[in-house]
Amino acid sequence: MKARVHVMLKDGVLDPQGQAVAHALGALGFEGVGDVRQGKVIDLELHETDTEAARAKVREMCEKLLANTVIERYDIEIG
Amino acid sequence: MKARVHVMLKDGVLDPQGQAVAHALGALGFEGVGDVRQGKVIDLELHETDTEAARAKVREMCEKLLANTVIERYDIEIG
Repeated sequence: MKARVHVMLKDGVLDPQGQAVAHALGALGFEGVGDVRQGKVIDLELHETDTEAARAKVREMCEKLLANTVIERYDIEIG
Repeated sequence: MKARVHVMLKDGVLDPQGQAVAHALGALGFEGVGDVRQGKVIDLELHETDTEAARAKVREMCEKLLANTVIERYDIEIG
């Protein structure tokens, strides 16, 4: 079973990487670009075959390792 | 209009970050974890209102800045 996790900075937390990308896009001549936010995407292959068990396991992975839940939020896609 | 870009290493390209995550998950006692791949997710706010024009613009952003197309592939979600 495959899982995809997105880890993004919470709204309101300064995103220097996103700002750097926005600045660079402007310097390259791209107009009409507003806010840019950059985060992590993590694709996992799990031997688990039950969807809800897999979701619970990935949530635990996020809480323990994949996300710094003080400043980051995450979302999980299973399958 | 919002766009989301995923930038991942191409298959076959060594992913040390993904390996480090897999190793750390194992050390934390998570079993049944196979391959782990980590990439970037970039959320963009665009003033563009036409979907195809926005897709073309984001594709150009990927080719010029957001992805190193020698070793990375990208996908674009619009809206």
